[in-house]
Amino acid sequence: MKKSISRQQFLRQSSTLFGGAMLGSFVGLEGIANAFPKPLIRMMYNENPYGPSRIAQRAMQKAFKESNLYTMRIAQIEFAELIAALNATTPDHVSIGFGSREILNKAALMNGIDNGELISPQLTFEAINRYAQNTMKSKVVRVPMDDNIGIDLDALASAITSKTNMIYVCNPNNPTGLALNSNQLEAFCKEVSKKVLVFVDEAYHEYAVGKDYKTMAHLVSPENKIIISRTASKVHGLAGLRVGYAIANKAIVKRLNSYMNGSLNVVGVRGAIASYGDKSFQSFSIQKNNEALQIVSNHLDSKGVQYLPSHANFIFLKTGMNIKEFQKKMEKHGVKVGRPFPPYINWCRLSMAKPEEMKYFNKGIDKVLNL
Amino acid sequence: MKKSISRQQFLRQSSTLFGGAMLGSFVGLEGIANAFPKPLIRMMYNENPYGPSRIAQRAMQKAFKESNLYTMRIAQIEFAELIAALNATTPDHVSIGFGSREILNKAALMNGIDNGELISPQLTFEAINRYAQNTMKSKVVRVPMDDNIGIDLDALASAITSKTNMIYVCNPNNPTGLALNSNQLEAFCKEVSKKVLVFVDEAYHEYAVGKDYKTMAHLVSPENKIIISRTASKVHGLAGLRVGYAIANKAIVKRLNSYMNGSLNVVGVRGAIASYGDKSFQSFSIQKNNEALQIVSNHLDSKGVQYLPSHANFIFLKTGMNIKEFQKKMEKHGVKVGRPFPPYINWCRLSMAKPEEMKYFNKGIDKVLNL
Repeated sequence: MKKSISRQQFLRQSSTLFGGAMLGSFVGLEGIANAFPKPLIRMMYNENPYGPSRIAQRAMQKAFKESNLYTMRIAQIEFAELIAALNATTPDHVSIGFGSREILNKAALMNGIDNGELISPQLTFEAINRYAQNTMKSKVVRVPMDDNIGIDLDALASAITSKTNMIYVCNPNNPTGLALNSNQLEAFCKEVSKKVLVFVDEAYHEYAVGKDYKTMAHLVSPENKIIISRTASKVHGLAGLRVGYAIANKAIVKRLNSYMNGSLNVVGVRGAIASYGDKSFQSFSIQKNNEALQIVSNHLDSKGVQYLPSHANFIFLKTGMNIKEFQKKMEKHGVKVGRPFPPYINWCRLSMAKPEEMKYFNKGIDKVLNL
Repeated sequence: MKKSISRQQFLRQSSTLFGGAMLGSFVGLEGIANAFPKPLIRMMYNENPYGPSRIAQRAMQKAFKESNLYTMRIAQIEFAELIAALNATTPDHVSIGFGSREILNKAALMNGIDNGELISPQLTFEAINRYAQNTMKSKVVRVPMDDNIGIDLDALASAITSKTNMIYVCNPNNPTGLALNSNQLEAFCKEVSKKVLVFVDEAYHEYAVGKDYKTMAHLVSPENKIIISRTASKVHGLAGLRVGYAIANKAIVKRLNSYMNGSLNVVGVRGAIASYGDKSFQSFSIQKNNEALQIVSNHLDSKGVQYLPSHANFIFLKTGMNIKEFQKKMEKHGVKVGRPFPPYINWCRLSMAKPEEMKYFNKGIDKVLNL
C-alpha cells in the first residue's frame, strides 16, 4: 500500500515537473499531420525520467542551509558509511566521486601516471577510454566484441601484455544493455585481477539486480586489484547532481582518493543519502523502466526487429539504417534517440522514457523503417 | 530602497536558516559562567555566513526539475557566457571548475604532466602545492615571505630556473588577507608570464575590489601564460555547491578543460548563475563583512594587538600564543578560529562571522590573552 501511494505521489509530482513533456501524451494529437510532443521526448541519455525522488528533493532543499559552508566532508563521510553498510564493507573500501565519471577519469589518470596500457572492449562506455587516450596520452587497446555483440572476456584476457595496467569491463554494458555470464565474469576477475587492475563499471547495477546478473563487489580483497564503480545518476535520478562511488581494497581507495577533487557538492550528497534510503522510489523507478522496456520489446517482437536483451534502462536494437539518418527522422516523430556507436552504426541505443511515452517511439520506428 | 528591502529579507532568512547559531547572540547570557553560543560560531573556514542568496536558492530549487538529466552542460555554457560578459572577454577564455579547487588541482596536474617545478610563497593557500607535491610528486619550491608577511615578488622571480613551469600567487593572499601592490604585481605578471605560467588566485576578488587591489584578468592574452581563478564560494556563499572558474588564453583554457571532470552539478551552476546576477546580495555580503572586520579591528586596535590589513573575509592577527592552544581556548568562548599556518604559528586567521557574532571573539581573546 505504501508503494502504491508513493507511485501516485510520483505521478502527481511528475505531471508537475514534466508537465510540458507529458502534455503531448494526453491531448490526442494522433490525427494531426506531423504531430509530435514538444519538447522532444528524451530517449538518448540513459536518464531516469522520474528522479530525483521527493524525499531526495526534501533533503536537498534542507541542505541549502549548509550550502554556504565547507561541511560537505561531513556529508561525504556519512554517505561513504551508508554505501559501506549497503555493500557489507567498511568506509575505507569506498571512494566517493563527483559522479562515477570522476572515478573513471581518476582511474585513467592513475593508469596514465603509471604509464600503463588500458584494455577495453570495442563497444562500451567511452569515458575511461577517452580520458586515458586523449588526456593522459595512454595506449588504449580495443578488443572486438563476440558474435553476439557481447564483451569477449577470453579475448580481453588474451590481450594482456607486460604493459597492461588496467582492463575495463562495463556490466551491464553500455550501449548494449547486455550482462555478462556471472560465473565467467567472476572467474575472469579472480584470475586477471591478480595481474592487472580490473575496473568493473556497474552503473546500471540496480536495474540489473534480479535478472541474470551479479555484482563483482564481493571480489574486492587485499589480493585482488579490482574497482567496482556505481552511480546515483541512474535509478536514483540524480544525474545532474554528480554523485558516484567506487568499492575497492583499501590501498586502491587511498590512491584513488589522492587524485580526487577532495570535495563534493553538499546538496548532491544529501540528496544521494536520502535517495539510497528511499527503497520505494527505487522500486518504482525500476518497475516503470521494466514496463517501458516491455512496451518497446513487445512492439519490436511484433515487427520482427532484432534487439539485445536489456539489463539496464536502455535497449540496443538493429534499425538497419544509418543511425545519424535514423536520429533525424525519429526527431520528426517526437523522440530523441542515442548517438551512433561505431562500428555498430545501424544499431540504435534507446533509453527508456516513461511507459506512456514509449508509444511515440513505437509509432515513429514503424514510419521511419516502414514496418 | 531595493537594497534595504533585500537586507531585511536576508536578515529574516538568516534568522531562520541560522537560528541556532544566532540565538546565543540575543538571549543575554553574558552573566552566566561559561556561557557561549551553541553551536560554536564558525570563524575558521572563510565562509560567507549569509549565503546562498534567496534568489540563488530559488534558482536551485527550480533546477531540481532538471537534476535527473544530463543538462548540466547547457547550464555550464550559460554560466561561462555570463562570466565572460562580466569580465569583458569571450567564453573560450573561461574554464568552469568544480570550485576553484578543481582549477587549482588541474593546473597542478598539468604542471606535473609537464614534469615542471612549481614556485609558491611559503605562506599561502595550500591546495595547488599539495596536489603538485603529494599527488603529482612535483617539486614545489617555497619562497619565504617578506618582512611584513607579504608575498615577495622579487624573490619569487629570482627562484625561477629552467625547470620552473608555474608560479602561484594568491591575491589577496590567504591566510594573510594582504593584497599586493597592483603596479608591482602587474609588472611581475607581464615579465614572468612570458617565461612560465603565472597562476593568480583571486578567490577573494569581490571583497578586495574598491580597496587597494586590482585583478590581473586584463593581462590574459595569447602571449601571456597566465591563469586567473575565482570562486562562487566566498561572496556568493556557495561554498558547498562547488563552482569556480578560470580566465586564461584560449590555449590554456583548452588544455585545462581537457583535464577537468567535464561536468558540473546543475543545481550549483543554476545557483551561481542567479547569484552572479544578484548584485544586491553581493553588496550586502561585502558590507556585512566590512562591518565585522571593523568591529574586530577596532577591538584589536584598542588592545594593541597586531594584525594585517585585510582585503578579504578574514583577518590575520598576532596572538603571541601557539595557535593550537589559542584554538582550544577560544572554543571555550564559543568561537572556532583557523588552524595553524606554519611557520606563523603564533598568528590566527579569523574568518568573519556576522557582525553581531564578532563580540564573542572580542570577549574571548580578551580572556584568553589577558588583554
